[in-house]
Amino acid sequence: MTASWKEELEKARDAHVQELLTLVSMPSVSTDPARAGDTRATAEWVAERLRTAGVPEVQIAESAGHPAVIARWKAHEDQPTILIYGHYDVQPEEPVDLWNSPPFEPTIDGDIVVGRGTSDMKGNLLTAIQGVEAAAKANGGVPPINVSFIFEGEEEIGSPNFRDILREHKEFLNADVVISADGGQFGPDTPSLSVSLKGLAGVQVNLTTANTDLHSGSYGAWVPNAVQSMVQLASTFHDDKGRVQVEGFYDAVRELTESEREEIAKVTLDEEAELEKLGIDALWGEEGYTPRERMWARPTVDFNGIWGGFQGEGVKTVTPREAHLKITCRLVADQDPANIVELLRAHCEKHCPPGAKVEVVPAAGSARPYAVDRSDPAFEAVKDVLTELYGTEPVIVRNGGTVPATGIFQDELGVETVTMAWAAQDSKAHAPNEWYSLRDYLRGREGYAMLVERLRR
Amino acid sequence: MTASWKEELEKARDAHVQELLTLVSMPSVSTDPARAGDTRATAEWVAERLRTAGVPEVQIAESAGHPAVIARWKAHEDQPTILIYGHYDVQPEEPVDLWNSPPFEPTIDGDIVVGRGTSDMKGNLLTAIQGVEAAAKANGGVPPINVSFIFEGEEEIGSPNFRDILREHKEFLNADVVISADGGQFGPDTPSLSVSLKGLAGVQVNLTTANTDLHSGSYGAWVPNAVQSMVQLASTFHDDKGRVQVEGFYDAVRELTESEREEIAKVTLDEEAELEKLGIDALWGEEGYTPRERMWARPTVDFNGIWGGFQGEGVKTVTPREAHLKITCRLVADQDPANIVELLRAHCEKHCPPGAKVEVVPAAGSARPYAVDRSDPAFEAVKDVLTELYGTEPVIVRNGGTVPATGIFQDELGVETVTMAWAAQDSKAHAPNEWYSLRDYLRGREGYAMLVERLRR
Repeated sequence: MTASWKEELEKARDAHVQELLTLVSMPSVSTDPARAGDTRATAEWVAERLRTAGVPEVQIAESAGHPAVIARWKAHEDQPTILIYGHYDVQPEEPVDLWNSPPFEPTIDGDIVVGRGTSDMKGNLLTAIQGVEAAAKANGGVPPINVSFIFEGEEEIGSPNFRDILREHKEFLNADVVISADGGQFGPDTPSLSVSLKGLAGVQVNLTTANTDLHSGSYGAWVPNAVQSMVQLASTFHDDKGRVQVEGFYDAVRELTESEREEIAKVTLDEEAELEKLGIDALWGEEGYTPRERMWARPTVDFNGIWGGFQGEGVKTVTPREAHLKITCRLVADQDPANIVELLRAHCEKHCPPGAKVEVVPAAGSARPYAVDRSDPAFEAVKDVLTELYGTEPVIVRNGGTVPATGIFQDELGVETVTMAWAAQDSKAHAPNEWYSLRDYLRGREGYAMLVERLRR
Repeated sequence: MTASWKEELEKARDAHVQELLTLVSMPSVSTDPARAGDTRATAEWVAERLRTAGVPEVQIAESAGHPAVIARWKAHEDQPTILIYGHYDVQPEEPVDLWNSPPFEPTIDGDIVVGRGTSDMKGNLLTAIQGVEAAAKANGGVPPINVSFIFEGEEEIGSPNFRDILREHKEFLNADVVISADGGQFGPDTPSLSVSLKGLAGVQVNLTTANTDLHSGSYGAWVPNAVQSMVQLASTFHDDKGRVQVEGFYDAVRELTESEREEIAKVTLDEEAELEKLGIDALWGEEGYTPRERMWARPTVDFNGIWGGFQGEGVKTVTPREAHLKITCRLVADQDPANIVELLRAHCEKHCPPGAKVEVVPAAGSARPYAVDRSDPAFEAVKDVLTELYGTEPVIVRNGGTVPATGIFQDELGVETVTMAWAAQDSKAHAPNEWYSLRDYLRGREGYAMLVERLRR
């Protein structure tokens, strides 16, 4: 007699926790060329895990960058096909000295697993495989619907080769809808259903002054200083309140309607609690919008890093010749990433101080903002699964983050993307001490088993 | 029959060039704790070189930091005593990748020696020892006057322990005047005589926002960003033209008199040639003053370095939690370094953006601005030596750089300091590819021999 998927998952519990630790221990940092080998090894591990789940067709899909893992479980002629999306790459672990435990040696403390990639998104990735595996076991060895998978290795660097991979494997990946496992839940025991994602565009600004570093005593008073010039340039991107001053930046932005503002306002944000948790005494950002509106529905110009001149211990009385600024922008409908890069370039050229030269290098990878089609049947199915799993209706949310893949799925496969995922909102994704809840992990597996059951015709 | 000092120097020419290469190859980077051993080894080499020159009393003077080398050649009861000052430590070699040859493997190309510390100031240091040695040899084995030496190992970090060393060895170092070998000549074949030095004060500004780095998609739109906040704070230090905006910064500044401006104006600065040489298309700095006046007689707030957030390859969509800025100020009479640090602190606290916290850490080492007493006999003697050596009167210059020792000599030994030194103005001191002219080196030795001859009563 066949066990239910719930029983299958219960039996595999300890093995699944072990799998999470193993996967997180693999340093698949896609932005670091020195980790290319580790990144490939991680892809191979994921491919092997799909094979042990019973997926009959599993491939490493090569690209100009890191490979994707693609897989297909075509079990029925008369059932729909979902394509489960995720990524196996992770953010860099820097600054390492702020981690309380080594980023790639995951540790369990009660319900919490700490490690780079736990919440973004190796845990979610495994819940999708394990849930489908359990549903297949309970269904005589094949899942109740057709399930394909694509796990890319370049999401954290903006998915520069993802479109090419989809094009090359278009037939293989053909599906009715994409279910993205990359995302989170609204709060502990509160599910959420995301209706929009921000887009992304980025540049690195390289500023130079003289052709050499100079002695500040001899030159500091009369020759441009690159750090000084960069500060002057960088200070022109925002007003004091955080509104972006780049000309044309807001031109394509769809203003929020009254009903959208009402929907967003239903999801309160406890400012006092956030201030307390973050250890700060004031919030920041564009005037005229609530923090929640800014997070979910307003575009930004974010400074991710700055450097120039002497950064060592002690004093060096130098007039630096170069300085650098890393910028990414979070975009909303209908901003276009390529256009935003051009606006940033024009802004830098216009505001570059006299005596300095500026070079604006577009970052690899960009993404259009994305809005979910709420009429897709999968949207309702995910809503029902979440309601049953958590015992409460999901909160309708928007996502301040970016999943470049969504726009590319629309373009290349002509399908919508609905997200079903489990990371906690304060999980320190992209930051030191990233964590994930074991309880959410184990429950998440059930969600994926339920979803494939529910989508059966 | 005794050879003249000129013959002695001629004989030793090749050996003296070799000594320069040896001394420059020693990485005495005083700001780097990892180089403490190299720094001490350099002090010992200098002490040994003084002994081989015939100086009878040579000591390593310990301090809380790097030691100084002190030495005394008391040869006559009825002759004056000069104390020759210099430093054997050097600036850090970073950024290493901009050097055309390894910074501590000096190479000779025609008249030019390239290496860290060649012009600042291992070459000058050796000319003083070699010149006095030759004058002694030509004078029956003792110099014509009494000569003491002090070569410190912490000038490049602001001479934090120099005062203590002078206090401890006050009797040993007692002299009528200090001759500083730390400085330069005005141009090729144009000597100069410096009548003022700028002072120095510095701080590191550490700015923090949230207690962790954050995901820019989730937090960037509504939580303060440390790089953003630092840019905002740093942009308040100057107006667009470079005038310092720190409250009270100019209060103690002695305005230039009409006759001072005339003296300064005699020394032209070819702006077009400088722009060409530096590879820039505009100068910078405080309005209302010529570049030469700014360089020599106006105080500055210089940004030496900035860093915060992600600085690696690729993209990291992080909202950084900390950023840092290194500042040094060049001061003029009668600005007080300790007061300036307090003004910088007050400025940072006043202009720290909401949601950020700022910490202002004073840099080790500071220096009062210094003005030479032109009535001291040594001032005339150096002027005469330079006139004879170069065949032209020295240009009266001011120094935009800082030698903290000068104020300390006044305080502790009650003596004036006159500078006689040979570094070229564009010698890339403190920068990659620092260089020194062999011709100036060899001629500089003669200057020191002539000086001790000329000061004989």
